[in-house]
Amino acid sequence: MTAESDFIAAMRAIATDPGARGLDDDAAVLDGLVLTHDVIVEGVHFRADDPPEDVAWKLAAVNVSDLAAKGARPVGCLLGFVLGAADWDARFAAGLRDALATFGMPLLGGDTVRGPRVLGMTAIGRAGAAVPSRAGARAGDALWVTGRIGAAGIGLDLLSRGEDGPEVAAYRRPQPRLAEGLALAPLVHAMMDVSDGLLIDAHRMAGASGLAVTIDLDAVPAVGHPREAVVAGDDYELLFALAAGVSPPVAATRIGGFAPGAGLRLLAGGREVATPARLGWEHR
Amino acid sequence: MTAESDFIAAMRAIATDPGARGLDDDAAVLDGLVLTHDVIVEGVHFRADDPPEDVAWKLAAVNVSDLAAKGARPVGCLLGFVLGAADWDARFAAGLRDALATFGMPLLGGDTVRGPRVLGMTAIGRAGAAVPSRAGARAGDALWVTGRIGAAGIGLDLLSRGEDGPEVAAYRRPQPRLAEGLALAPLVHAMMDVSDGLLIDAHRMAGASGLAVTIDLDAVPAVGHPREAVVAGDDYELLFALAAGVSPPVAATRIGGFAPGAGLRLLAGGREVATPARLGWEHR
Repeated sequence: MTAESDFIAAMRAIATDPGARGLDDDAAVLDGLVLTHDVIVEGVHFRADDPPEDVAWKLAAVNVSDLAAKGARPVGCLLGFVLGAADWDARFAAGLRDALATFGMPLLGGDTVRGPRVLGMTAIGRAGAAVPSRAGARAGDALWVTGRIGAAGIGLDLLSRGEDGPEVAAYRRPQPRLAEGLALAPLVHAMMDVSDGLLIDAHRMAGASGLAVTIDLDAVPAVGHPREAVVAGDDYELLFALAAGVSPPVAATRIGGFAPGAGLRLLAGGREVATPARLGWEHR
Repeated sequence: MTAESDFIAAMRAIATDPGARGLDDDAAVLDGLVLTHDVIVEGVHFRADDPPEDVAWKLAAVNVSDLAAKGARPVGCLLGFVLGAADWDARFAAGLRDALATFGMPLLGGDTVRGPRVLGMTAIGRAGAAVPSRAGARAGDALWVTGRIGAAGIGLDLLSRGEDGPEVAAYRRPQPRLAEGLALAPLVHAMMDVSDGLLIDAHRMAGASGLAVTIDLDAVPAVGHPREAVVAGDDYELLFALAAGVSPPVAATRIGGFAPGAGLRLLAGGREVATPARLGWEHR
């Protein structure tokens, strides 16, 4: 039991309201609204040398991505902003304006303070007829993922080496899958976005659903090496559980399935292979 | 024009949705819900040596205070938490449990990350029949404040000098005026909580209402010296504008009034006196 898991356990013990969904989800549901709050930290979720416009984009995008995974349309947001250098702040403001216009998400309020660069946003969405949780996968369901996995991780590696490349945009400007989330929400048994890594997020969905999950590495639509892609994170694709035999109405790839039991199994070349020691990011 | 006011101006330019109330308010209104997001920073809003239980209380209380000022009942909150030392985090969790139980505000979700201690909370309240803004004061209205002003500032001074005293609790455990806010909301023309200082907050209410405000220092229910109390902040009392001749249904003191024009005038001993250079805290 780590200190973090102790803290999360303490929060779960507090969060007994049904709208909290046991904190197993990335969003809360209240009065037909879907509410999510994500925090990004300089040096953790973004680099000090990332363009401020891109940091604003990322802050909005990671929050909107949680709405997408719940099949909700953005209706507003609150911003927790820490003031710093005037030029950085002005560029952040310009980037935020563009991001919110792109996502159709009005700025409704928030707080501006002085301190270290820890930026928070609460995004509010209008719930559709169904708000899928992480916890609804059923034994026999197939596991699907939209888009491709791993580009953002390659982008981060490039930046860490002082290099550039087309994958940098995937890291700095993730594209939340709003339209896909809206189309999928009525059909899926469980859905979440891939923020911390495909393996860790799939493992969380299986855990919340009380099931085991198997992923076929050969099937993963990876950019770069699949074994690196599946633990890289920052992709903001949608991961979802769908009844066997049902085809999703959006571009997506079947990468595995759920079965009774617990834990994560990996296949490669038709055989079970060891899972990596690190499945993704935790509490970034 | 400071860099901060540039940033706020840029945010106002983005926040054109009616629910944002031009960012003149401490809360947004959406679908009958009142939403507010406040951030507290170690070394700015709380002291590194403050008991973690009290930091949790303060984070919840400053957010609930914004709901109180809108006459809203708490219905939920989202927490943006930055992990640190395990003992501190565990004590924070215990304090949060107690604070949320006291305020009747369920924890619905949020995000846990690693980084410097910048803590955010989004509080969600159920709006009543009226949701007073800062901007509704009318010429001729009287200005009132609940409770007493200045104790929290004395508490902070004591702590800064390594001393203790009964006022420390006022700094560490502010009491949001939920019941008073509910009773006042249908009657007032404008209402806000006193977080940054009586003078600066009254000046903001006057500015948002397009009026001048006069405050009689001799009338201010001050703990300690009135001239220090009115710029101290952290009191979380309610400041409200009420038509002349109307008596509030809660314990409160009439301290001034609104008139056509702009700016802040101070009276003492029946004569106008100079306003202090610093009216309170900005962007803490």
